[in-house]
Amino acid sequence: VAESPGAGAGAAPARRRPAAGDPGTLIERARAGDPRSLARLVSLVENRSPELRAVMKAIAPYTGQARVIGLTGSPGVGKSTVTAALVAAYRSAGQRVGVLAVDPTSPFSGGALLGDRVRMQDHATDDGVFIRSMASRGQLGGLAWATPQALRILDAAGFGLVLIETVGVGQAELEIASLADTTLVIVAPGMGDSIQAAKAGILEIADVFVVNKSDRPGAQEVVRDLRTMLSMGEWPEGRWKPPIVSTAAAASDRAGLDDLLERIGQHQAWLDSSGELAARRQTRAREEIAAIAVAVLRERMGALPGDQRMAELAARVAAGETDPYTAADELVSG
Amino acid sequence: VAESPGAGAGAAPARRRPAAGDPGTLIERARAGDPRSLARLVSLVENRSPELRAVMKAIAPYTGQARVIGLTGSPGVGKSTVTAALVAAYRSAGQRVGVLAVDPTSPFSGGALLGDRVRMQDHATDDGVFIRSMASRGQLGGLAWATPQALRILDAAGFGLVLIETVGVGQAELEIASLADTTLVIVAPGMGDSIQAAKAGILEIADVFVVNKSDRPGAQEVVRDLRTMLSMGEWPEGRWKPPIVSTAAAASDRAGLDDLLERIGQHQAWLDSSGELAARRQTRAREEIAAIAVAVLRERMGALPGDQRMAELAARVAAGETDPYTAADELVSG
Repeated sequence: VAESPGAGAGAAPARRRPAAGDPGTLIERARAGDPRSLARLVSLVENRSPELRAVMKAIAPYTGQARVIGLTGSPGVGKSTVTAALVAAYRSAGQRVGVLAVDPTSPFSGGALLGDRVRMQDHATDDGVFIRSMASRGQLGGLAWATPQALRILDAAGFGLVLIETVGVGQAELEIASLADTTLVIVAPGMGDSIQAAKAGILEIADVFVVNKSDRPGAQEVVRDLRTMLSMGEWPEGRWKPPIVSTAAAASDRAGLDDLLERIGQHQAWLDSSGELAARRQTRAREEIAAIAVAVLRERMGALPGDQRMAELAARVAAGETDPYTAADELVSG
Repeated sequence: VAESPGAGAGAAPARRRPAAGDPGTLIERARAGDPRSLARLVSLVENRSPELRAVMKAIAPYTGQARVIGLTGSPGVGKSTVTAALVAAYRSAGQRVGVLAVDPTSPFSGGALLGDRVRMQDHATDDGVFIRSMASRGQLGGLAWATPQALRILDAAGFGLVLIETVGVGQAELEIASLADTTLVIVAPGMGDSIQAAKAGILEIADVFVVNKSDRPGAQEVVRDLRTMLSMGEWPEGRWKPPIVSTAAAASDRAGLDDLLERIGQHQAWLDSSGELAARRQTRAREEIAAIAVAVLRERMGALPGDQRMAELAARVAAGETDPYTAADELVSG
């Protein structure tokens, strides 16, 4: 692979941050299937590069093609194993598959998804698979800002399918659900009782429930609890009722995987026929715009750590000399 | 309790949203110990009332007194049971205790914390305990915006201790950790292996590790794994090293609770002597100001659902006619 013009390969060896190169060239090469150029473009997102603006402008016409599948669930349910099984299945069907493993939990988690990478090593030499772990770096809104842009790049580079895996439950999960066309909520036996599952708010975001580790004791009870929860909802004609699929993704026969693929396909067909795909993508675009606009505004108002003005206002609020609204007004008004 | 002037008690019966009343009167009564006035003030936060500005301004001088303890952990570890045990313990020591149970996972979770409320019913008739479940209502940044303001109200109303309990791991957990003076990370046996625990980024936010359900098989292994993780960190003189406390909060003898209380007390003493308390509260104030400033800016730019201008821009982005940066610029500049 030829180095792109202007890219000093040894510029930042310590953090292995690739030099940016010419965005136009990178996009052209990424679209032609060059994994290095693609990796550089995604790094622009992670590094919050000023060149992102030009990249996003240039790739806009190529976007909107990829199907996006979100995978979420508590730690320990086997998300990464299900992701790996799906990658293998779609890959053998000839699709180019992108994977964004999003870790919203730690500003220091650059290496935390190592376990997933290890499990993904089957695909390490396959240019038809692109895998990237992303951390939100502890920034408020960081996940909402970065993930859709990485997705946008994979989409424009011709990946027909992008899987977004996120750990845990919470705000991040809601954000992933708003990014994905189809959200798989993965659960497993032995992870807490049904009232806890209801707590996690998973009913509202699931398009397909995956009961993984279905070869373990208690799996039937999990299925039954989910069925009971679903039966309490209302499912009028035209509304998608999430199916429940039992899998054992780690088992040698990858039990239930064909069923899962079929259910995903059915949901994708429903998205198309119902008009819901267009609605979800409109929502996604709206949230992308809002996240970027907020980032722009935050920069303008100088709400960055170390900023002197914010520090003074915060000290006055902490001392009870003023209140956060008055302080915010002072900050915003300039 | 007399109705405050101007409060139409039947104004919004369907959602049981209390009428606001005169903020000055509500504050005075809440500070005198009237639970209804306090509940109304907290409802102003949940309803994003325009009167909040006046309330926050008026109470600023009374804030900064409460000790804040955050409790977090995956679903099923027994957070609510630990919270209830702490409430009982501090209450018998004569403290007024506020509890904010924050559910960041669902826009529809108004009733999802019912289980917690049930467990808290011992305190239902005790004016020295105030318990409120808060949902983030699916709004980006909703949790960061609302919880510190509810905390501020409890603080000003004279609650010397406020417990903030949040479900799950993720962005919400980071936000709670930034709110709390002392963060308890609660884990339990059987909730996934240690690499998953590392994934959850809990090391960075824990002031005290609580291994709950310590009477169950596997508890010793969890303690050992945590010890191993801690041993990999660096703990220079003056840095707080999180202790590990084993509890069985649901057991009849509430095993380990005294130990937990002692460890919390030690952390509070360290916060005072090290200057860390002031640093954490400065950070908290900074984030409060930023969250409010962002909310103000978002309102100004009309990034609200249903806004016509945003809808048009989102449609153009979804169609690939423009990119989110250009759209955000148009939104912000106009």
